[in-house]
Amino acid sequence: MRLLLVLLLAAAAAAVVANAGAESVLREVTDVPTAVSSAAADALFCDSWMLSVETGNMGPWRQVPRRCGAFVRAYMEGERYKSDSAVVAAESLAFAAQAIASGEGGARPAWVFDVDETLLSNAHYYAVSGWGLVEFNETSFDAWVDVAKAPALPYSLKLYHELQGLGFHIILLTGRSESQRNATGANLLFAGYHSWEKLILRQPSDIGKTAVQYKSERRAAMEVEGFKILGNSGDQWSDLIGLPVSTRSFKLPNPMYYIS
Amino acid sequence: MRLLLVLLLAAAAAAVVANAGAESVLREVTDVPTAVSSAAADALFCDSWMLSVETGNMGPWRQVPRRCGAFVRAYMEGERYKSDSAVVAAESLAFAAQAIASGEGGARPAWVFDVDETLLSNAHYYAVSGWGLVEFNETSFDAWVDVAKAPALPYSLKLYHELQGLGFHIILLTGRSESQRNATGANLLFAGYHSWEKLILRQPSDIGKTAVQYKSERRAAMEVEGFKILGNSGDQWSDLIGLPVSTRSFKLPNPMYYIS
Repeated sequence: MRLLLVLLLAAAAAAVVANAGAESVLREVTDVPTAVSSAAADALFCDSWMLSVETGNMGPWRQVPRRCGAFVRAYMEGERYKSDSAVVAAESLAFAAQAIASGEGGARPAWVFDVDETLLSNAHYYAVSGWGLVEFNETSFDAWVDVAKAPALPYSLKLYHELQGLGFHIILLTGRSESQRNATGANLLFAGYHSWEKLILRQPSDIGKTAVQYKSERRAAMEVEGFKILGNSGDQWSDLIGLPVSTRSFKLPNPMYYIS
Repeated sequence: MRLLLVLLLAAAAAAVVANAGAESVLREVTDVPTAVSSAAADALFCDSWMLSVETGNMGPWRQVPRRCGAFVRAYMEGERYKSDSAVVAAESLAFAAQAIASGEGGARPAWVFDVDETLLSNAHYYAVSGWGLVEFNETSFDAWVDVAKAPALPYSLKLYHELQGLGFHIILLTGRSESQRNATGANLLFAGYHSWEKLILRQPSDIGKTAVQYKSERRAAMEVEGFKILGNSGDQWSDLIGLPVSTRSFKLPNPMYYIS
C-alpha cells in the first residue's frame, strides 16, 4: 500500500511537471444550480471551488475567481480556517503518535514542514494585497518576508511542539530563497518555533525548478542521510507529491494561491 | 508605490506583534468558539471533518462521527453535493477538451470511471442505512445492487456524454464483483449510461486485494492494450492512487464511507 502510494505520487508529480505549460489557460467554472440568489449562488460556488482547490481537482490556477474574493477573505478571517487547521493538526498528531508507538520511524523519525501558510501565516500580507484576487507580486512579498513578523499558525505551532515531544526530527523545507535565510529564521523564532534540525531554502541552482522537483530532490537527500520521513505538512500539493513521499501527507488549507 | 506597500506591511506587522498573544491561544479540535451553540460547533467541526476526508488527510475511517450524521444527511440531500459535483465535472470537462485538442490522448484516449457514488448514486440506500453512521453492511448493500435502480449522478451523466462526444473510450472500473455484472449493467442502462468500452468488475482472483491494488492492476492492463488514460473519476482516493495513474485524477465528494 505504501509502495503503491509512493508510485502514484511520483507519477502524479510527473504529470504535474508535464502539464505545467499546457494548463496555463485560466478557466472559470460557473455551472451551479440556478434556483438560488446571486449571493447565495456565489457562496455555494465558492465553497465548491475551494473544495476543488483543496482536493487538487482544480489543477493549476493563477487567481481566486473574482466572485470568490469575499469568500476567501471571510474564510481566512473566520472560524473555518481555524477549525480546518485544527482538524488537520489533530489528524497529524494522531498518526504521529501511533507511528512512533509502533517504532515505524526507526532511529531518525522525521517530519517535514513547509513554511508559508504551513508554519507561518501571511494572512496579514494578503489582507492588504487583495486576498489572492491579484497575481502574486514577488517584490512586495519579499518586503513582507524581510519584516519577519508573520505570526505562527497556532495549530501548527502546537503540533510542532507535540512532534518534538514525540522525538521527531523537524525539517523545514521552503520555497523561499537562501538569501531569505536570516529573515526566515528570525521570523520562525519570533513566532515561537525553535530547535529545527534543518531549514532548507532554494539555492541558486534550484532556480527554474518547480516546487515539486525542488522539494522531491531535498526529501530524497534526507532519506540518504538516514531520516525516515513519516509525515509531511504543506498547504500546496507541490509540497507533498513527488518521489520520495512521506508515509502520510497532510494538506493544510489555502484558498489564496497556487504553487506548481 | 513600493515604499508605501512596505510601510503598509510594516504597520501590519506591528499589528501582528500587538495581537501575538491573542493568536497563540491553542485549542483542541473539539474546542470551538464558546459564543456559538452546540449545533453551530458541530457544523463547523463537520465541515472541517469532511474537508479532511476529501483531501485524504483523514486516513482510513470506518464510520461518520456521530455528531456529523445530520451534517452528512444535509450535505447529501442539499445543494452543496450538487454544486461540488458540478464543479468537479466542469473541471474534468475543461481538462478533457484541452487534452483532446492538444492530441494528448493519441489514438485511444480513455477515461476511467468508478461506478458507486461516481456514476450511480446510492444515496437512497444510505438514506435508509444511517448515512454512514453505521458500518457498511455487505448483505443489505448487495440486495440494493440487485434492485438495479440507483439513479445517475446528474453531472457525471452529463460529463459521460460530453466525453463520448469528444471521442473518449469510456472504461468503467468498479469494486463490485463479477457476480454483479448483470445487475450493474442493467442499472447503468437504467440510469442513462450506454456504449462503454469495458465494464471491469472484481474477479474471484481479486478477493483480498485492496481497491488500490486491484484498480492499479487493471489500469496497467489498459495501458498494455494501448489506451492512454487521460482522466480518472472516483469518489475514493483508492480509485485514483497507485501506478499507473491517469494524467489527471478527479476526486468526487463522498462523506458517507471510506474504501482502502
